[in-house]
Amino acid sequence: MRQLLEAVQSGTQSVDDAVGRLRSMPFEDLGFAKIDHHRAIRCGFPEVIYCEHKSIEQVCAIFDKCVEAGGNVLGTRASHEVFTAVARTHAKVEYDRAARTLTLRQNERTPSAGTIAIVSAGTSDLPVAEEARITAEIMDQTTAMFHDVGVAGIHRLFAHRDALQAASVTIVVAGMEGALASVVGGLVDCPVIAVPTSVGYGASLKGIAALLAMLNSCASGVTVVNIDNGFGAGYAASLINRLVPHASS
Amino acid sequence: MRQLLEAVQSGTQSVDDAVGRLRSMPFEDLGFAKIDHHRAIRCGFPEVIYCEHKSIEQVCAIFDKCVEAGGNVLGTRASHEVFTAVARTHAKVEYDRAARTLTLRQNERTPSAGTIAIVSAGTSDLPVAEEARITAEIMDQTTAMFHDVGVAGIHRLFAHRDALQAASVTIVVAGMEGALASVVGGLVDCPVIAVPTSVGYGASLKGIAALLAMLNSCASGVTVVNIDNGFGAGYAASLINRLVPHASS
Amino acid sequence: MRQLLEAVQSGTQSVDDAVGRLRSMPFEDLGFAKIDHHRAIRCGFPEVIYCEHKSIEQVCAIFDKCVEAGGNVLGTRASHEVFTAVARTHAKVEYDRAARTLTLRQNERTPSAGTIAIVSAGTSDLPVAEEARITAEIMDQTTAMFHDVGVAGIHRLFAHRDALQAASVTIVVAGMEGALASVVGGLVDCPVIAVPTSVGYGASLKGIAALLAMLNSCASGVTVVNIDNGFGAGYAASLINRLVPHASS
Amino acid sequence: MRQLLEAVQSGTQSVDDAVGRLRSMPFEDLGFAKIDHHRAIRCGFPEVIYCEHKSIEQVCAIFDKCVEAGGNVLGTRASHEVFTAVARTHAKVEYDRAARTLTLRQNERTPSAGTIAIVSAGTSDLPVAEEARITAEIMDQTTAMFHDVGVAGIHRLFAHRDALQAASVTIVVAGMEGALASVVGGLVDCPVIAVPTSVGYGASLKGIAALLAMLNSCASGVTVVNIDNGFGAGYAASLINRLVPHASS
Amino acid sequence: MRQLLEAVQSGTQSVDDAVGRLRSMPFEDLGFAKIDHHRAIRCGFPEVIYCEHKSIEQVCAIFDKCVEAGGNVLGTRASHEVFTAVARTHAKVEYDRAARTLTLRQNERTPSAGTIAIVSAGTSDLPVAEEARITAEIMDQTTAMFHDVGVAGIHRLFAHRDALQAASVTIVVAGMEGALASVVGGLVDCPVIAVPTSVGYGASLKGIAALLAMLNSCASGVTVVNIDNGFGAGYAASLINRLVPHASS
Amino acid sequence: MRQLLEAVQSGTQSVDDAVGRLRSMPFEDLGFAKIDHHRAIRCGFPEVIYCEHKSIEQVCAIFDKCVEAGGNVLGTRASHEVFTAVARTHAKVEYDRAARTLTLRQNERTPSAGTIAIVSAGTSDLPVAEEARITAEIMDQTTAMFHDVGVAGIHRLFAHRDALQAASVTIVVAGMEGALASVVGGLVDCPVIAVPTSVGYGASLKGIAALLAMLNSCASGVTVVNIDNGFGAGYAASLINRLVPHASS
Amino acid sequence: MRQLLEAVQSGTQSVDDAVGRLRSMPFEDLGFAKIDHHRAIRCGFPEVIYCEHKSIEQVCAIFDKCVEAGGNVLGTRASHEVFTAVARTHAKVEYDRAARTLTLRQNERTPSAGTIAIVSAGTSDLPVAEEARITAEIMDQTTAMFHDVGVAGIHRLFAHRDALQAASVTIVVAGMEGALASVVGGLVDCPVIAVPTSVGYGASLKGIAALLAMLNSCASGVTVVNIDNGFGAGYAASLINRLVPHASS
Amino acid sequence: MRQLLEAVQSGTQSVDDAVGRLRSMPFEDLGFAKIDHHRAIRCGFPEVIYCEHKSIEQVCAIFDKCVEAGGNVLGTRASHEVFTAVARTHAKVEYDRAARTLTLRQNERTPSAGTIAIVSAGTSDLPVAEEARITAEIMDQTTAMFHDVGVAGIHRLFAHRDALQAASVTIVVAGMEGALASVVGGLVDCPVIAVPTSVGYGASLKGIAALLAMLNSCASGVTVVNIDNGFGAGYAASLINRLVPHASS
Repeated sequence: MRQLLEAVQSGTQSVDDAVGRLRSMPFEDLGFAKIDHHRAIRCGFPEVIYCEHKSIEQVCAIFDKCVEAGGNVLGTRASHEVFTAVARTHAKVEYDRAARTLTLRQNERTPSAGTIAIVSAGTSDLPVAEEARITAEIMDQTTAMFHDVGVAGIHRLFAHRDALQAASVTIVVAGMEGALASVVGGLVDCPVIAVPTSVGYGASLKGIAALLAMLNSCASGVTVVNIDNGFGAGYAASLINRLVPHASS
Repeated sequence: MRQLLEAVQSGTQSVDDAVGRLRSMPFEDLGFAKIDHHRAIRCGFPEVIYCEHKSIEQVCAIFDKCVEAGGNVLGTRASHEVFTAVARTHAKVEYDRAARTLTLRQNERTPSAGTIAIVSAGTSDLPVAEEARITAEIMDQTTAMFHDVGVAGIHRLFAHRDALQAASVTIVVAGMEGALASVVGGLVDCPVIAVPTSVGYGASLKGIAALLAMLNSCASGVTVVNIDNGFGAGYAASLINRLVPHASS
Repeated sequence: MRQLLEAVQSGTQSVDDAVGRLRSMPFEDLGFAKIDHHRAIRCGFPEVIYCEHKSIEQVCAIFDKCVEAGGNVLGTRASHEVFTAVARTHAKVEYDRAARTLTLRQNERTPSAGTIAIVSAGTSDLPVAEEARITAEIMDQTTAMFHDVGVAGIHRLFAHRDALQAASVTIVVAGMEGALASVVGGLVDCPVIAVPTSVGYGASLKGIAALLAMLNSCASGVTVVNIDNGFGAGYAASLINRLVPHASS
Repeated sequence: MRQLLEAVQSGTQSVDDAVGRLRSMPFEDLGFAKIDHHRAIRCGFPEVIYCEHKSIEQVCAIFDKCVEAGGNVLGTRASHEVFTAVARTHAKVEYDRAARTLTLRQNERTPSAGTIAIVSAGTSDLPVAEEARITAEIMDQTTAMFHDVGVAGIHRLFAHRDALQAASVTIVVAGMEGALASVVGGLVDCPVIAVPTSVGYGASLKGIAALLAMLNSCASGVTVVNIDNGFGAGYAASLINRLVPHASS
Repeated sequence: MRQLLEAVQSGTQSVDDAVGRLRSMPFEDLGFAKIDHHRAIRCGFPEVIYCEHKSIEQVCAIFDKCVEAGGNVLGTRASHEVFTAVARTHAKVEYDRAARTLTLRQNERTPSAGTIAIVSAGTSDLPVAEEARITAEIMDQTTAMFHDVGVAGIHRLFAHRDALQAASVTIVVAGMEGALASVVGGLVDCPVIAVPTSVGYGASLKGIAALLAMLNSCASGVTVVNIDNGFGAGYAASLINRLVPHASS
Repeated sequence: MRQLLEAVQSGTQSVDDAVGRLRSMPFEDLGFAKIDHHRAIRCGFPEVIYCEHKSIEQVCAIFDKCVEAGGNVLGTRASHEVFTAVARTHAKVEYDRAARTLTLRQNERTPSAGTIAIVSAGTSDLPVAEEARITAEIMDQTTAMFHDVGVAGIHRLFAHRDALQAASVTIVVAGMEGALASVVGGLVDCPVIAVPTSVGYGASLKGIAALLAMLNSCASGVTVVNIDNGFGAGYAASLINRLVPHASS
Repeated sequence: MRQLLEAVQSGTQSVDDAVGRLRSMPFEDLGFAKIDHHRAIRCGFPEVIYCEHKSIEQVCAIFDKCVEAGGNVLGTRASHEVFTAVARTHAKVEYDRAARTLTLRQNERTPSAGTIAIVSAGTSDLPVAEEARITAEIMDQTTAMFHDVGVAGIHRLFAHRDALQAASVTIVVAGMEGALASVVGGLVDCPVIAVPTSVGYGASLKGIAALLAMLNSCASGVTVVNIDNGFGAGYAASLINRLVPHASS
Repeated sequence: MRQLLEAVQSGTQSVDDAVGRLRSMPFEDLGFAKIDHHRAIRCGFPEVIYCEHKSIEQVCAIFDKCVEAGGNVLGTRASHEVFTAVARTHAKVEYDRAARTLTLRQNERTPSAGTIAIVSAGTSDLPVAEEARITAEIMDQTTAMFHDVGVAGIHRLFAHRDALQAASVTIVVAGMEGALASVVGGLVDCPVIAVPTSVGYGASLKGIAALLAMLNSCASGVTVVNIDNGFGAGYAASLINRLVPHASS
């Protein structure tokens, strides 16, 4: 844009032409364009590829382009087959079979000041919790995992109370009745992001029961993401955790 | 039936006629008829009148008939106007404005051996909890109330842990996310009856969120009744609590 | 906890240290910890493993740990493949192909005083009814089964009326319209636990129709568990049936 | 149409004009027009006015037109205010306060050969049952009412078994869990029309629970109409009952 | 029962014993027992087996028993594998691959006086229409099929208007928006049974859209069965069509 | 924007300042700003005010501003009270009590070349049809109304076939089962916009049944708007109808 | 019809016979019959075959018949297997693997005056967008595609603003939250047809979330079709775009 | 707890007694008790009273107790009548008629380092946005409001882009299709909390449409609270914004 304006100033560009070009100019030149890309560049955020519903060829092509951009790359909901295809070109890409994530780290890790606690109710909720953890870590956030601490045996949760209260932000992953979000929300003073999972059967309605429960949490400060959306929780938690200043600064 | 058979035996009744009469005989004579009435007589159960959707005249007429039967009488979802009308004839009838119940005790109270714990999450859940308590008490059951012990401040619940564990059966009343049922279910060894309430707004869907949560409870031994159905929980809990033997027997 | 307090008393432990350790001490030491485990020890309850969504390795590892605990073990929703893997280590484990349960009895059976009646509407509801029966039996409860007594041929149910009325608690298993729960609820005086099943098609909405019907039962004393949750019904019924005293005591 | 064709035959009408007029001629002249009106004339069916959502002036105007047509007239979901307005012009119109129906009989009653049994579960279902009865009767059908025979006290229903089995078609009206339709469907050999009602609360979802239950009835031969649609059931039952021949014919 | 009463009359049976035996006697002896079986015997109705969710062994066993009873036999939702197994024993059993029905006729066909019109909207609705037709025919009813007459080309339906109006009862089978039921309902004077099908995608919600449309039909006299329930419609239509007298009687 | 660029050209504005101002400049200056307003100016479209949920003061203030803009003004879902308040300042504003619209015409009417047919199923659907008509007319479109032509008496619709086929675009307004959209869609060659209404009860689910039916229409070329959204249909139809050229052009 | 009338005029056909024949004459002869076929002939519209739920034999037979009719042919939701079978007879049929369409062009292409813009949110929405494009093109409409312009990077959309505003009608294809329809609706002055897709997971409810969002669009002039219904959107857009006159006419 | 341990150490308390007291001691003494209260004390958080479903007497009593605790007090969903009653005792309590909040500030305001942007789509969403603002401000957070910037006129939003990007956390309040959350989520780099509102009609399903849309947002970093839950969003945003360090620290 600056170049265009300088051309107008110098007279090598007429006003009429400049009006036309400004109208049609890609908006990224005005500052709000290619936002995702800007995010990645400005913040060290990863480029993210949602692999489901894309062909292996499409994922590979997008992955290549993201790698070229130079930052970290995260692929979510990737099959092992996709991983194998991507790994042919990018030998250092890592795959987590449970979380179904692809990660390629190109930036050096810079540990965050705050910690993201990730609390999950049962063994079956682990893959979603892992997706959240991997997302946060590729965004350079420190995480602490608390597995299998569902409310039916609530002492298992309380045993970790101090560690939980030390976190800057907490992710709670639970299926079935999703009660864990409310209990954790009552124990900690930090923001809580609840992730309902599709774990359950019958009246769990593939996670709708947990989703509704979390939206109606009686604990203040709980926000919610989509069912099984560990990525979304990890991303939002990272945005929050980045606000915590390093001690010496 | 016996009379009929004796008439056949004595020859004053032909076989053909007896076949016809047995076919058309009201089934209560075969033992499974007028069950509700039998229940009341056998067990000291109250006659119960669901007052909603009935005219004042209808409720009064049914109430009269129930009083004549001689046992205790319980009216649920009764307006104050209904109470006033019933009280004209039955001066001793009692009305609970929160629970909207009518009660008339005609049998002497015989305290139960076991205790029904009634646990409610918030102040707004109280009317439903009270309906459960009044139902249980007109059925001669001992109750213990634990109000405002929702999971967002879970210490309030834990302070009553010993008392809860002493009960033979527990009713949990909660709206919003209904998480209390799972937490209580994990703390006690007795049967738990969960009552979702319509307390909440938006995604609580008038109690559906709490209902689904309770049906998906991760704690074993939790069963559920309809939204706001304090009566049903109180009745079922009484059926259970009656099984507890008196110490000296 | 006692050891810690004795150390404080004897002076080998400072007050400050004791405060710290008590805060971080696993809550089972305070009495409400490892509840599931305590339940099993106190009551002869089985350790229960929900096998769905767990890998064979995970189920095997948990099964091993449960066996070590010394009590009975129950696995629900187990595939035959899981059974084969578990049976390699635990030769005495039993598998029910219809109910998809694993059971290993380590405690001697002590028959219950009361009986749990399990009533199912149609042939297709049998697997859920069997899961309820197996759950109750591994918890040392006596059961009586009444199969294929759906309401469209209601005489089949009535033929068993006396046997039904002799039970201490009744489980009703039905899909489609779930009407059996209300009819049984009207026939018996004991607590009724209704289990909707996913049997049906179209507007049965995978069991939601039966679930809603059972929650709205016009018979007092009916409580409900999740769709296809035979285990939950068997567990809750066992908690209730345990309240029935043995005749001679 | 015949007149037009005769004009063509006689040459007073050109073919082209006849083509044009036939195209634009109201379709009732071709036989399938003004069907409702034809129905009324052919079959002695009433003209029916659904009064809800119509202004008093609109109802009055339509009522006048129907009366002129000479047959019986039925107004459904009419307020008392509407009745008062209509009665000013039509003094003989009758109003049923519970069923909210207006009826004006202009044809002599000719009793039907068959009987429509109308069975309702509880007192609250009566208004819908009455709407069905009044609809059937204004269509000259014989009815037999069986009130308050819900499945929780199933003997009340069985006491009327013979009378039920004598009917040519049966209407079952029930709210809450709607189980009555299946039980009646299993007892009789005639067509059963089930009417779910909005009686209930919470998980009855304003009649959806009963509707789903009836659609999933395990008894063959049950069909269903909309929630609270007593009129529709009465109308369909009348269409069926009209098929029953008079004995002497 | 008669035998028992005669024994009482003759003195070979005491009154007390007779009371006991009458109480415990299977209810079919009292007239309302084994209703399905009675139906079949009295009316020439088929024995019906719902094959889905049953093992091949179970279906074969039930089929054998039904054949022994001597009447016609109908199996619905049968796989070809089930057919092969049944045909080994019963060589004359017929299988319809589209409707997935098994039929074995043992009674001679006695044509009905009335005709059941079966109208379907599109090619994809044919299997459900065929299930209705086969059900009606094994019940000795005459049928007339009208395929592919959906409302988007409404002339196709109108071409059959006269034939439609000659039927005693009409079944309408339609998926997607289910509008055909209302249009047919407006054209004919006989009872209409609407069968929503699961044909469609997206917002058809597997037939719920058509189901709701049919329940809300603006045409009087339309009743509805479950989604894809061709059997239910055929059965109910047969119960209705049986009411039509033979001309010479 | 042009002024800014000329200032840059003339040197009275530095490039840096221009970059800053272009970044922060309201986007309407770039051409896509204040779109609604531009639409109104460019096309003679009305300014539209959705009055529901706004206070009378808010509506009056917005109305004033719209009048100043010089074009036509349309208020939807306006109470009579709102009308009275607006009319105090704008004496020429018109109010339609059924459609609940406010209209103030400031531009001269310029009749459209094409015609919008508005077809409604029943008397109760009229207010929504009227809202569509008034919206189209304030946008200078010619309309033709076809009332009370529901599918239960389909001849009423066919009588207007030629008139319907002459329209450029058709709006179909129907509640209950919404079948009219499919029937009309099959009769005409022009685009059809379907408006479900909340007319009905029970399983109509306040218009959801009609909405689903319309979305699943078997007739090609049907699009749908929100329940009761006569305005939206009228607006979209006007956008379409504007495409029709005047004959002489 | 004319022939018939001439026969009446000439006396070779009696009036009575003519009445009979006119009643039973296929309605296409009256002008509104075989509408789909007429559409195709009058407008150069394609014959359309919805292949899903049809057997390969059925599709082939219908395809043959459509080809004979002489116009273009479009098959939607066709598997590759269906394509192979059809291609054996019709070597020139084309298959689009993503859109799953079969097309056979028999008419010469006549380009439309207006342009249909097709805007899609993400890569996963492409198949639906392609179905819309192919539908429009076989109907001789000019299209312009704008892929991967979802609202999370809204600059990508704005870069195409001028091109979008040049279209006569716009199709917006989006899954997940479906927000693109509202944003595009606010940018353009032409009719917008929104197509929700089933892209997403969890609370997207297979496209219901996007469908609801689009139905509630705050932008005026947006209409909606069924989930994943690219064909319907392409067809409706073509009906609209046909209204745009060629410049020189 | 310390006192108890010191008593044990000094011997004035036996170990057995100490075990008993520790078991029954209110859990707040162990550090996780009275959490809400602790929160308020530790963090300067307000005591919060949800006034809906509580009687005026109950609200007044709770309000008194909260005031005594010495911190700020917030009442949500308070009627004007409740305000009047509370103001009698607490003259300085403030009431916001739109947001329906009561606030009483007792702590001195200490401005936050970060800013919470609160963006709302339309005038009707203002009350919910105001509830969020008032909640944040009583928690000493700085807010910036952006009203009436819905996506149908997206330039209104973009005009505030720089201000939006300066915020530490953003709250987006929108009803209808809720698209604003995704658009804002794509523009900013900070956490976004989306609040669906019940603004809309028909298929908005009282806010469910907006809720689903927000849960499915294609923009990363968006979390969601319950419908109309401005308080929850304000509270969670405050927890996040508190993490932002003051510049000089």
